[in-house]
Amino acid sequence: MQGQAQQQAYDRGITIFSPDGRLYQVEYAREAVKRGTASIGVRTPEGVVLAADKRSRSPLMEPTSVEKIHKADDHIGIASAGHVADARQLIDFARRQSQVNRLRYGEPIGIETLTKEVTDHIQQYTQVGGARPFGVALLIGGVENGTPRLYETDPSGTPYEWKAVSIGADRGDHQEHLEENFRDDLSLDEGIELALEAIASTSDEGTAPDGVDVATVSAEFERFVELSNDEIESYLEANDLLATEDDEQTEE
Amino acid sequence: MQGQAQQQAYDRGITIFSPDGRLYQVEYAREAVKRGTASIGVRTPEGVVLAADKRSRSPLMEPTSVEKIHKADDHIGIASAGHVADARQLIDFARRQSQVNRLRYGEPIGIETLTKEVTDHIQQYTQVGGARPFGVALLIGGVENGTPRLYETDPSGTPYEWKAVSIGADRGDHQEHLEENFRDDLSLDEGIELALEAIASTSDEGTAPDGVDVATVSAEFERFVELSNDEIESYLEANDLLATEDDEQTEE
Amino acid sequence: MQGQAQQQAYDRGITIFSPDGRLYQVEYAREAVKRGTASIGVRTPEGVVLAADKRSRSPLMEPTSVEKIHKADDHIGIASAGHVADARQLIDFARRQSQVNRLRYGEPIGIETLTKEVTDHIQQYTQVGGARPFGVALLIGGVENGTPRLYETDPSGTPYEWKAVSIGADRGDHQEHLEENFRDDLSLDEGIELALEAIASTSDEGTAPDGVDVATVSAEFERFVELSNDEIESYLEANDLLATEDDEQTEE
Amino acid sequence: MQGQAQQQAYDRGITIFSPDGRLYQVEYAREAVKRGTASIGVRTPEGVVLAADKRSRSPLMEPTSVEKIHKADDHIGIASAGHVADARQLIDFARRQSQVNRLRYGEPIGIETLTKEVTDHIQQYTQVGGARPFGVALLIGGVENGTPRLYETDPSGTPYEWKAVSIGADRGDHQEHLEENFRDDLSLDEGIELALEAIASTSDEGTAPDGVDVATVSAEFERFVELSNDEIESYLEANDLLATEDDEQTEE
Amino acid sequence: MQGQAQQQAYDRGITIFSPDGRLYQVEYAREAVKRGTASIGVRTPEGVVLAADKRSRSPLMEPTSVEKIHKADDHIGIASAGHVADARQLIDFARRQSQVNRLRYGEPIGIETLTKEVTDHIQQYTQVGGARPFGVALLIGGVENGTPRLYETDPSGTPYEWKAVSIGADRGDHQEHLEENFRDDLSLDEGIELALEAIASTSDEGTAPDGVDVATVSAEFERFVELSNDEIESYLEANDLLATEDDEQTEE
Amino acid sequence: MQGQAQQQAYDRGITIFSPDGRLYQVEYAREAVKRGTASIGVRTPEGVVLAADKRSRSPLMEPTSVEKIHKADDHIGIASAGHVADARQLIDFARRQSQVNRLRYGEPIGIETLTKEVTDHIQQYTQVGGARPFGVALLIGGVENGTPRLYETDPSGTPYEWKAVSIGADRGDHQEHLEENFRDDLSLDEGIELALEAIASTSDEGTAPDGVDVATVSAEFERFVELSNDEIESYLEANDLLATEDDEQTEE
Amino acid sequence: MQGQAQQQAYDRGITIFSPDGRLYQVEYAREAVKRGTASIGVRTPEGVVLAADKRSRSPLMEPTSVEKIHKADDHIGIASAGHVADARQLIDFARRQSQVNRLRYGEPIGIETLTKEVTDHIQQYTQVGGARPFGVALLIGGVENGTPRLYETDPSGTPYEWKAVSIGADRGDHQEHLEENFRDDLSLDEGIELALEAIASTSDEGTAPDGVDVATVSAEFERFVELSNDEIESYLEANDLLATEDDEQTEE
Repeated sequence: MQGQAQQQAYDRGITIFSPDGRLYQVEYAREAVKRGTASIGVRTPEGVVLAADKRSRSPLMEPTSVEKIHKADDHIGIASAGHVADARQLIDFARRQSQVNRLRYGEPIGIETLTKEVTDHIQQYTQVGGARPFGVALLIGGVENGTPRLYETDPSGTPYEWKAVSIGADRGDHQEHLEENFRDDLSLDEGIELALEAIASTSDEGTAPDGVDVATVSAEFERFVELSNDEIESYLEANDLLATEDDEQTEE
Repeated sequence: MQGQAQQQAYDRGITIFSPDGRLYQVEYAREAVKRGTASIGVRTPEGVVLAADKRSRSPLMEPTSVEKIHKADDHIGIASAGHVADARQLIDFARRQSQVNRLRYGEPIGIETLTKEVTDHIQQYTQVGGARPFGVALLIGGVENGTPRLYETDPSGTPYEWKAVSIGADRGDHQEHLEENFRDDLSLDEGIELALEAIASTSDEGTAPDGVDVATVSAEFERFVELSNDEIESYLEANDLLATEDDEQTEE
Repeated sequence: MQGQAQQQAYDRGITIFSPDGRLYQVEYAREAVKRGTASIGVRTPEGVVLAADKRSRSPLMEPTSVEKIHKADDHIGIASAGHVADARQLIDFARRQSQVNRLRYGEPIGIETLTKEVTDHIQQYTQVGGARPFGVALLIGGVENGTPRLYETDPSGTPYEWKAVSIGADRGDHQEHLEENFRDDLSLDEGIELALEAIASTSDEGTAPDGVDVATVSAEFERFVELSNDEIESYLEANDLLATEDDEQTEE
Repeated sequence: MQGQAQQQAYDRGITIFSPDGRLYQVEYAREAVKRGTASIGVRTPEGVVLAADKRSRSPLMEPTSVEKIHKADDHIGIASAGHVADARQLIDFARRQSQVNRLRYGEPIGIETLTKEVTDHIQQYTQVGGARPFGVALLIGGVENGTPRLYETDPSGTPYEWKAVSIGADRGDHQEHLEENFRDDLSLDEGIELALEAIASTSDEGTAPDGVDVATVSAEFERFVELSNDEIESYLEANDLLATEDDEQTEE
Repeated sequence: MQGQAQQQAYDRGITIFSPDGRLYQVEYAREAVKRGTASIGVRTPEGVVLAADKRSRSPLMEPTSVEKIHKADDHIGIASAGHVADARQLIDFARRQSQVNRLRYGEPIGIETLTKEVTDHIQQYTQVGGARPFGVALLIGGVENGTPRLYETDPSGTPYEWKAVSIGADRGDHQEHLEENFRDDLSLDEGIELALEAIASTSDEGTAPDGVDVATVSAEFERFVELSNDEIESYLEANDLLATEDDEQTEE
Repeated sequence: MQGQAQQQAYDRGITIFSPDGRLYQVEYAREAVKRGTASIGVRTPEGVVLAADKRSRSPLMEPTSVEKIHKADDHIGIASAGHVADARQLIDFARRQSQVNRLRYGEPIGIETLTKEVTDHIQQYTQVGGARPFGVALLIGGVENGTPRLYETDPSGTPYEWKAVSIGADRGDHQEHLEENFRDDLSLDEGIELALEAIASTSDEGTAPDGVDVATVSAEFERFVELSNDEIESYLEANDLLATEDDEQTEE
Repeated sequence: MQGQAQQQAYDRGITIFSPDGRLYQVEYAREAVKRGTASIGVRTPEGVVLAADKRSRSPLMEPTSVEKIHKADDHIGIASAGHVADARQLIDFARRQSQVNRLRYGEPIGIETLTKEVTDHIQQYTQVGGARPFGVALLIGGVENGTPRLYETDPSGTPYEWKAVSIGADRGDHQEHLEENFRDDLSLDEGIELALEAIASTSDEGTAPDGVDVATVSAEFERFVELSNDEIESYLEANDLLATEDDEQTEE
């Protein structure tokens, strides 16, 4: 009780540290990330894979309406987990930064450069008063001069580079699955399969083709490509992950 | 009690997350939506239907005065549920965005584009301090290049695309009715009937023609059209939904 | 007690919703409206009637000093109830909007248009921080292209159109009187009588000519006209509503 | 106790209403008015009289230093009661408005016009945050096209027109005296006497000539004139109100 | 206790009135004035005298370092009591206003004019949020067209004109001494003596020449002149007020 | 308990001092520094060494992703400890200041000059409201006119110059190790070894080459150089500090 | 306890006075000054001496890194005590003011002029909201037209002129030592000795040459000169104040 009372004393504003040097509002924003369905990124020598769990909450909702993977530029995709409306703000920000880069320098923006512009933007919302942190994590994946790159941004505004990573619900289980099964020499196809397996690993009923989004940026073409439902179904079927019937689950 | 006390600690400002990553003010704004009478949208291959429950509170009030469905542009209608004055702000915003699009690009704004401009606007009121969230949900329906589209915006600023959806009071019952009766191959007429039935499903006394607004945007003409009281009466009569007498109910 | 304590937690600022989706400050502003003496509007095919109870608080105060009915434009009158100084702000706003309309478009402003500009203005004070809502309700009555219109604005910024309506103290009783006696085919004279009867219905001692203001905008001339004390006295006498002596009552 | 605790919950800021629709800060500012010595205005057909109780607090203080009546323009005087420094702000505001009117329209400002510009200014301080209300009431008296006018402004920003009125300490007793003795056909001299009698009515020891300020604006000359100490002494003597010796009383 | 608790509820901000119409922060600022050593002003037909108690707190501190009397313009001196750093702000403000007057109108500023510009400045800090009141009182003395004038400003922003006045510590005793000994026909020399006597009246050990500042503005020359230590010593000696040895006292 | 309650009274805002003259928010920001893994700087006559403990938290995270040492300019490196996103802000600031210096003066910025521009920037966040302090400490090392310099910045904005210093976790133990083993005549190689030994001194399992970053700015070339993994491995091996297997440890 | 509770009610903001007219935040800032090691100033006819205790906290910290005495202009030095980062802000401010004076008037700034510009700057931080006071005191010493001057600034923004003065830790003891030993006819050498003796008077182990900074501005050359370690050692040795070994002490 007392520990709790003490914690409550320092978690009301983003502009104060707790006595042990923590920013509670940033930590609570991380909880908002965990409340969202998972997104997973896998980096292979052949390209980057982004996959997102988008189990829709209602049979009448358009599956495409739950957007979890977005194209930021021709060569960059972004997957999100957490507060959906916040994600849209950051993705718009990323798109504008990409366009500005093309206009100013006449060339596509680097993946790391874009990530750090996004995290700097996020950090501002953790230090300056009058606003709350972004309650969302992003996976920024793309290819830069032929090299696949995969970054994570978190609500504190810290950038991380990953070989394979999960954000959102069940991160612990997904990450464990990735650590056990990731190999540096995965093909792009194997990367897609690994991502889908990780998502399926925390679902008892399997995955429906319209319950997941998958996109890739291949090292060869450096183009963001979203897989069709049919393509996703093939992968799910081939890996025995296909849901036997279109089961619906509720996401808050 | 303690849970409540704890909740109260985090629901006073829009700029803070609760320890479990929730934005209470946004959730309370959703309650304001539930306090408003229902609006229902149905998307058919022949066009989009918007219907709104507008039972007036007094016999001397002009029924047309309770505006729940608005024309946003020639090809787009918006229905609302929740805080009426807030709805007016968002609808004005949507109209301005539509006009700007016509001026800037010389063509009608896309339904998804408009929806996202509105939700971005809503999101700002959930992250930056000094204002409260909008206590209103909208249904944005229209036809874009011959294709009917139907979107919902909620107080968090998240856009959803739907085949058929209800907002406001009795959402649970209405949505259940829609899920049980919606078919992908509904005609526009059948869409109107489905919407009216859904509204009537939660009313014991039937529906009066001036107790409901109905509007459509047909795929053929791409024009927002409001049904006259006579037209509505025909639909209600044909479907045995007509109130036996003009019963009045109170909406807060 | 607990309910009260809980309510108090959410009623201190205009920028927060209560857990049940209410804006307490707006509801309290509605109480300020109820603290003011009544104003009544009646719409007839021949024109709009505005009447206001203005029982003065002191025999030395000029009766004309208690302004409850104002001319907004040649063809529009506004009656108020509630916080007097707030009413003056809104009426000045309405006048400026009317003038701007004439300058910009060369024609008189529409009654609905003016009402909505006023309610949009009011709504701002319920959503953005740093100010309180307006503690006043208005009746905006006028004639537009030969058609009489009568609108109410409330502290939330919602516009309502009415056939006949009362704002301020004793709204319940007045509205009941109107509902029982209003007919769609009232003459303008009968409208004046109905309004005066409604005001008198909650007063035991009858009404003094300088204890009430009456104004009309006739459909024929589309001009705001205030009745003289003599004219009002005639109506009161003819309807047996005249106070036997100049009784004074106190308005807070 | 509980009533008090509840009141205290709503009286800390000018931007919130109490549950019963009151603005406590404005009501407290009215208390500040009551803490000041009285000012009295009397309107006669021959002109307006302003009189102010200015019993000085110390024999070494210059009596002229306690300014309670000010010239706002050639034809307008203003008397005040309440927070002295606040009064000075409003009187400066009134003077600037008067000058602007002469510059802009080439004619003296109307008494009602000036009063309403002042009350609009006062109202702003009751609705917008970041400042407190003005703790002062004013009597604005003058002659407009030959007609004497007398207005009161209160801390809420409401204007009232009066035949005769008192503001500040002992308002109840003074107003009662005025109501009993005011006649519509008073001469200007009789108006001065009535005002002095009213002030003296709440003082046991009579009034010293330098313990009161008197000024008039006559209908004939439309000029603000302050009475000399000798003139005041004559009036006091003639009406048997003169203090037997220069008694000093303390004003907070 | 309860009275105290209630007081505490209203004294935290300058922008709120207490239920009895008081501005506690302004009253507390008056306490800051009382914490400072005294300054005394005496107005004689031959000119104005300003005298200030400046007993230094340490033998190594330069007596001239404790500035209590300042030249505002050639013909105006200002003495202060209270928060020293606040006094410096107001005196700088007064000097700028004096210079502006000379530049704009080509003549020296009037004593009353300057006083009111200073008090208007002070009042702002009592009504608008975001700052505290000035914790200082000033005596503004000078000669205008041959006439000596002496004004006091207090933390509320009220100007007072005096024949003789004391501000700061021991105001009660000093003022009593002045009232008993002031005569309208004092010579300037007698005015200096009266001021020094008043200061000495509350000190048991007499006054050291460098423990007091004295300045005059004579009606004849209209020039601010500070007395030298020798001159002050003469006055002290002649009036038997000289301290027998340089005793030091501590001022907070 | 009481001491704690008292402390809590003063640690909520950066703009207030505690009664004993402390700035608690700055002290809490120092705790955020201690939560980060260590960085160590060693200054030798041959150049400056920066070393950072960057044990990664997951086997799939790119070790290079945990950036603890950054190049600020050709001749300056910066190592950090604490809140990563805050560090990025300061390092960006330092880079901009370095570039501005080159543009404005045509020469590389001095190490002390840069440090003080950074600390001035940090100080602002401890005095002006609306933001929190930076939760990070920096080591700024470089060579200026052939002379190696090593500075520390802390969250209060104070600059310190060091011969050898540790920031972040285990500062006490590291600093002790440095004090016992530092010699003024260390070679650059010996400086690297000392830094690595210090880091290893608080780790039981030894250090992996990709668990540490090392960079130098040599006095000879005045260029920031990062050591390769192979180079680091050589140093670790030569000093018997190499981890027997790639053990992973979790950082906050 | 109650006194304490009451004090706590008024010490949270710089913008409020306590009921007894005190500014607690300014008083707490004075505590921050006392937490810093001492600085001492001595004014002799031959020039001004500034000396500062800078016992370093760690053997690896560069003694020169603890800056307590700074050159503000050719003829002015400033010593500080208290919050180091705050001191740097004020010293930068003083340097800019000095440069501006040279640019604007073509001559060196006066010592008193500079002091008052600094104290005016400090005062602003005690009256206007949104920032905290400066937690530092300064000694500003220099020579103006051949005359040595020595000023102190405190956190309230009050300037004091001294013959000899101590700020920071042990002010009481140091000041007592100065009062007992200061003579008006000290030579500059004797002034240095007096300052060093005062510092040593509160240290049991003597003073190390790099544990103290000494600077002078001589009346003859009007140039700020810092003494070398060798020179300081000579003074310490000659006065038997030299520490027997380099003992280190910890400063907060």
